[in-house]
Amino acid sequence: MSNVTIREIKTILTAPRGIDLVVVKIETSEPGLHGVGCATFTQRFTAVATAVNDYLKPLLEGRSVDNIEDIWQSAAGNSYWRNGPVLNNAISGVDQALWDIKGKMANMPVYELLGGKCREAAAVYRHAGGASPEEVEESVRRYMGEGYRYIRCQMGAYGGQTENGAQTIASPDGSLPGAYYDPAQYMRDTLRMFDHVRGKLGFDSVELLHDVHERLSPVQALRFAKELEPIGLFFLEDALPPEQVEWFADLRRQVATPLAMGELFNHPLEWKNLIAQRLIDYIRVHVSQIGGLTPAKKLAALCEAFGVRTAWHGPGDTSPVGMAAQLHLDLAVPNFGIQEFSGFSDEEREVFPGCPEVRNGFMYPNASPGYGIDLDEAKAKLYPCALREHGWLKARLPDGTAVRA
Amino acid sequence: MSNVTIREIKTILTAPRGIDLVVVKIETSEPGLHGVGCATFTQRFTAVATAVNDYLKPLLEGRSVDNIEDIWQSAAGNSYWRNGPVLNNAISGVDQALWDIKGKMANMPVYELLGGKCREAAAVYRHAGGASPEEVEESVRRYMGEGYRYIRCQMGAYGGQTENGAQTIASPDGSLPGAYYDPAQYMRDTLRMFDHVRGKLGFDSVELLHDVHERLSPVQALRFAKELEPIGLFFLEDALPPEQVEWFADLRRQVATPLAMGELFNHPLEWKNLIAQRLIDYIRVHVSQIGGLTPAKKLAALCEAFGVRTAWHGPGDTSPVGMAAQLHLDLAVPNFGIQEFSGFSDEEREVFPGCPEVRNGFMYPNASPGYGIDLDEAKAKLYPCALREHGWLKARLPDGTAVRA
Amino acid sequence: MSNVTIREIKTILTAPRGIDLVVVKIETSEPGLHGVGCATFTQRFTAVATAVNDYLKPLLEGRSVDNIEDIWQSAAGNSYWRNGPVLNNAISGVDQALWDIKGKMANMPVYELLGGKCREAAAVYRHAGGASPEEVEESVRRYMGEGYRYIRCQMGAYGGQTENGAQTIASPDGSLPGAYYDPAQYMRDTLRMFDHVRGKLGFDSVELLHDVHERLSPVQALRFAKELEPIGLFFLEDALPPEQVEWFADLRRQVATPLAMGELFNHPLEWKNLIAQRLIDYIRVHVSQIGGLTPAKKLAALCEAFGVRTAWHGPGDTSPVGMAAQLHLDLAVPNFGIQEFSGFSDEEREVFPGCPEVRNGFMYPNASPGYGIDLDEAKAKLYPCALREHGWLKARLPDGTAVRA
Amino acid sequence: MSNVTIREIKTILTAPRGIDLVVVKIETSEPGLHGVGCATFTQRFTAVATAVNDYLKPLLEGRSVDNIEDIWQSAAGNSYWRNGPVLNNAISGVDQALWDIKGKMANMPVYELLGGKCREAAAVYRHAGGASPEEVEESVRRYMGEGYRYIRCQMGAYGGQTENGAQTIASPDGSLPGAYYDPAQYMRDTLRMFDHVRGKLGFDSVELLHDVHERLSPVQALRFAKELEPIGLFFLEDALPPEQVEWFADLRRQVATPLAMGELFNHPLEWKNLIAQRLIDYIRVHVSQIGGLTPAKKLAALCEAFGVRTAWHGPGDTSPVGMAAQLHLDLAVPNFGIQEFSGFSDEEREVFPGCPEVRNGFMYPNASPGYGIDLDEAKAKLYPCALREHGWLKARLPDGTAVRA
Repeated sequence: MSNVTIREIKTILTAPRGIDLVVVKIETSEPGLHGVGCATFTQRFTAVATAVNDYLKPLLEGRSVDNIEDIWQSAAGNSYWRNGPVLNNAISGVDQALWDIKGKMANMPVYELLGGKCREAAAVYRHAGGASPEEVEESVRRYMGEGYRYIRCQMGAYGGQTENGAQTIASPDGSLPGAYYDPAQYMRDTLRMFDHVRGKLGFDSVELLHDVHERLSPVQALRFAKELEPIGLFFLEDALPPEQVEWFADLRRQVATPLAMGELFNHPLEWKNLIAQRLIDYIRVHVSQIGGLTPAKKLAALCEAFGVRTAWHGPGDTSPVGMAAQLHLDLAVPNFGIQEFSGFSDEEREVFPGCPEVRNGFMYPNASPGYGIDLDEAKAKLYPCALREHGWLKARLPDGTAVRA
Repeated sequence: MSNVTIREIKTILTAPRGIDLVVVKIETSEPGLHGVGCATFTQRFTAVATAVNDYLKPLLEGRSVDNIEDIWQSAAGNSYWRNGPVLNNAISGVDQALWDIKGKMANMPVYELLGGKCREAAAVYRHAGGASPEEVEESVRRYMGEGYRYIRCQMGAYGGQTENGAQTIASPDGSLPGAYYDPAQYMRDTLRMFDHVRGKLGFDSVELLHDVHERLSPVQALRFAKELEPIGLFFLEDALPPEQVEWFADLRRQVATPLAMGELFNHPLEWKNLIAQRLIDYIRVHVSQIGGLTPAKKLAALCEAFGVRTAWHGPGDTSPVGMAAQLHLDLAVPNFGIQEFSGFSDEEREVFPGCPEVRNGFMYPNASPGYGIDLDEAKAKLYPCALREHGWLKARLPDGTAVRA
Repeated sequence: MSNVTIREIKTILTAPRGIDLVVVKIETSEPGLHGVGCATFTQRFTAVATAVNDYLKPLLEGRSVDNIEDIWQSAAGNSYWRNGPVLNNAISGVDQALWDIKGKMANMPVYELLGGKCREAAAVYRHAGGASPEEVEESVRRYMGEGYRYIRCQMGAYGGQTENGAQTIASPDGSLPGAYYDPAQYMRDTLRMFDHVRGKLGFDSVELLHDVHERLSPVQALRFAKELEPIGLFFLEDALPPEQVEWFADLRRQVATPLAMGELFNHPLEWKNLIAQRLIDYIRVHVSQIGGLTPAKKLAALCEAFGVRTAWHGPGDTSPVGMAAQLHLDLAVPNFGIQEFSGFSDEEREVFPGCPEVRNGFMYPNASPGYGIDLDEAKAKLYPCALREHGWLKARLPDGTAVRA
Repeated sequence: MSNVTIREIKTILTAPRGIDLVVVKIETSEPGLHGVGCATFTQRFTAVATAVNDYLKPLLEGRSVDNIEDIWQSAAGNSYWRNGPVLNNAISGVDQALWDIKGKMANMPVYELLGGKCREAAAVYRHAGGASPEEVEESVRRYMGEGYRYIRCQMGAYGGQTENGAQTIASPDGSLPGAYYDPAQYMRDTLRMFDHVRGKLGFDSVELLHDVHERLSPVQALRFAKELEPIGLFFLEDALPPEQVEWFADLRRQVATPLAMGELFNHPLEWKNLIAQRLIDYIRVHVSQIGGLTPAKKLAALCEAFGVRTAWHGPGDTSPVGMAAQLHLDLAVPNFGIQEFSGFSDEEREVFPGCPEVRNGFMYPNASPGYGIDLDEAKAKLYPCALREHGWLKARLPDGTAVRA
């Protein structure tokens, strides 16, 4: 055991792209030695900060930086109730930062500690969108032109007509606040869009993906997956809400469409049997939402045992630190599938020096020890977080029924 | 729909018994009309307060107090990631307070809204303990003398030798911080204790319970449940951790001991199949940890369909408000089993006027509308909360392995 | 507990639309305070009346009106043999009336007691029919013109060629009394009808439903559900008889058509495992046939846990009282799917002041306390019930085999 | 087909033993040719009478007496909702009477039509009881002295201290009407009783049975069945309520005690899978409760396929006509197990000339054609039925919870 201990655990809130990010920075007893970890649960970021500051900080400061697994178990057990999004993110911030530190102490990129690279770089997929099939096609072509081969296609956000919200549908009297959408229309529109896009672009030069975003009833999801079969998707994502994952057995019996699931997962019971029963093809967890790199590398191992591949969640509410951390995992596990990515803004590159780089559709890590990424605290302050409304999280069916996700 | 709206959502932190409690108070547009709800997650109470204040308050203030289910669904969906302990408790605070308000608006105790009383009062069980079998016997006799018939027996807390912690066992080098205990010794000690207590007190006048507190490996739990069978427990609680509930199928195949589980549950996947497959006999959830009265009454209905009974979690980290709320449910569901109870302190009765009363082992609600309990904000301030260390949450095996719970 | 007791239980038989209805009216010790509940089992209405008058009346008169669940359990247990249509309806009459009374005592619509509104109004579906595909199309268009979006299509009743009966098919010698129909011809005809209707009306502006009415063999039902898949039904109803529900597992393995089942259900074993195994998508029980609002709200909760939605039975043999009662449930449960409706006659509106109203395909309750509907006893007498023959209940296969339903 | 038709269907209500019986008598177009059938649902006898008189009578009068199966299917389908106790009994009355007529037309006992005798007579079991183990022993010895070898033992009725009701237990305040009993005390008392009886009488000369009467929770039933294993019961009856029969799988996995179930059954889903999965050893249905001889002989065939034996329900609420009918089945099926019997009173023998006779523990039918039993209508009138209270059907747990059965 080294003599290096955790000197201070800091929670840094920053929104360089207008998305509230939570990053934990651990400073050690060793001058200049520190690590960063993603703890971003953007919709409840202040609660995560409270969890780190009020509980993990006093629990862990002074402990050895070496025993990452022990710290993970201790932190998870210390709240008694566990496995939820706020607490998992808090632990992830610490956990990822400790892996960054360990890499630096070894003078190695983290992927070396994980067993070394299995591949040169990680293929990523991007998000195409638009208000019409033609706009989506245009958006796909743009990404193809930039060298991407895997592209997610959504028309009108998640069943709505606009990117930032949902369809505007007349409810019986519209008195309930929310963003209305119609699942049946969404299914028809999306099929029409894919018929168009596939018809125009063929099968050879592009892989198409789609995200249902849990906005269908289970049997609608079954039907939709069946109707999409001829499109030959790379995968269909989040066809079902996390409370209803048993229905994947029904999809699996009827459909050959590859199934991806998991960005909403926080609890081992959400993924364990789904994987052991081979009901999905890609695990999509948001790494900080399950508690960081420590549980994610074990989850990758579980997936490998059952023929499932990884496809970690990676939109803008994964901080660049989180993206870098999972990229190291992407490179090191044999059963990597694909990496979601939504780009970095200039402001993000400014706040997070050392962001991974993407060339020709593949993401490459920085070669420096640890994750190769850092956080500039002064710059971070230039982009303060703010409590925001997320309109798309007020989804309602045409009759006004509130829908989760 | 009434015209009454949510005017203000307040989070009140108070610790009249030295246990940090979180209570949500909703004030309405109707002068004098308010409700209270339990949001207590004592180990992370400031995170719950943050979740209520920063997110639920702006989301819900101004809405009608009437639509409790819609508010529940809206609040649960609004964080995108959900089903975790911090966020569920925040929602519970609001949810329980709205049921209290609805009861007051109806001028009825809440149990009337739930279908009326199925029984006059709720049988409760108390916690006996001691450092030796004789001390436990003495403790049981004390409760029997007070009229209780159902008594949980623990010797040396949860596998330790002292009430407040755990066994002191020499670890390999003792360098890891924590409270060491030995599962094998715990099993032997507990069996010895029960042989003594049952031998002295017989079967006729007392029902005995026990809580494993997830401190065994799965196969140890199986063996322990089997060894305890002749003791004729009323139930054996938390034999397995929530991440390993599938092992209940193994216990069920070999053991007739009634199985109780669930105080740690936060996610429907933790209980849904356990109940539908009839693998437990008593559901033990902490009502605020699953999101309040709305999900709890639906959970009770789910249990009824499969022959499972309720035994809601009720130690001191359930606030008196939470205890009152679940008592209303206890009275109204046909499949009530038992109610855990650890007494109220004088300070609690002072802060929470209208606490339920216990007579001859049965708990009775206050007959006033709503839950019949209130919170005196001025008195609450006399008992401020504080960030505390919970030693028993640093459990370790003899070799130093950290154990959750 | 209030001091209000059940003063008198009256059974009122009335047929304002030519359908024999049974409504229970409970008068209380409180002058002017009464409630109404549906107990309609139209095919055996006098048996229900006998069950109420001879058994429930003496059992329950004088009891508190408050304890609805206790009364439900007491009444269900009091006959020893239970779970059948006659006795369940008798209990439902009492149960629904007690919820109406409780709403009035709370001065709230019943949906408020159930947790408040989840949606503004309940989407309903209507019954289109005709002797040819063109006639069915015409009937669908008529309903669309009135603002309905969900429409059930049947050609020639349930496999017959005429609305009021069945096909006239030459049996081997025709000596057995009954209404003959040919399942194979029914399947072919119905497919032809749906091809026509869908071809003419498209997918965008109308959702189509169909009711098999248990008139197929299990394997015919499987084939039929498969052949109907391209039609994109909103749901296919009663593909199997209640004694053969295990076959739904076979449909589920092969078909993405949404499956609705349950108007014939009386016993928990008919629905419990069907739901817990996710073999249906919509539960269709006739609320009074399972014993009223108390079991129906618990059934809705059971369905919610497994991703199943409600679609309570609602033709003319659900009295307007029953329709009002289930509408309150429709508004209050998150997993409401659709409400069947066959209109109210002028005579029904006269006998039952306060009938729910339908506007633009959505049903709205009366805003008065309780269900907001009443029964005018004097008017009810103008439409006396009569023992009737129900020709469609004498179904026979072409070779003369009697078929149930 | 003969030319004989149903001329008149009469429902005769009589209570020669103080138990309300319902017997259907069918008179035919053939002078002097008639048959009798049991339709007894004693707790709701007037509802059965209404069902026969108002619906089956007009449906079936004038039809050929020959087509029993066709009449059964027609009658079952004619109510649309089916499989419940009132309607099944009504059909049974007709069904059993038609078999009696067919026997007479063939000039044969009914068992001849069923395939002839497999055995000379049917072994019966009797009911011993008492308030103490010694009284039960005394009661058993009395029956042994009369030649019986199979004897059911109950102490204090079904968990109560007296034959006619239940234990008198102080409830919290006793305000809910009912007969209180304590399941835990019942289990302990019954075990004590069996230890005594088996200790005194040994294993060689007597087979002991016991009826739980659904008065335990599922896990209590499991434990009780396990504790009773050393007693070597002939069978343990009704350990679970009909809504919870899936739990028999749990009993089966742990217990070698023979399991009997079914007197409460009315619906095929209650028995079908229980038998096909071999979860019980004896089927105990009350033959008229499932619709008469036609379904009972098919049920016996189903049981034979899976190694299950018959043990038809036979206390005083099976009329002597019903007892005679099932005796014919007892003699004719290879997988007969045992026949419950509670004796005939002199008044019953007077009203029902031709009652089966019991000699040395075996029951013998009358050798006359049909069942060999008749109903004397004039005598029947001497013992009029009356609406009665059944105290034991108001069972409550110690805390006042109403329990079904």
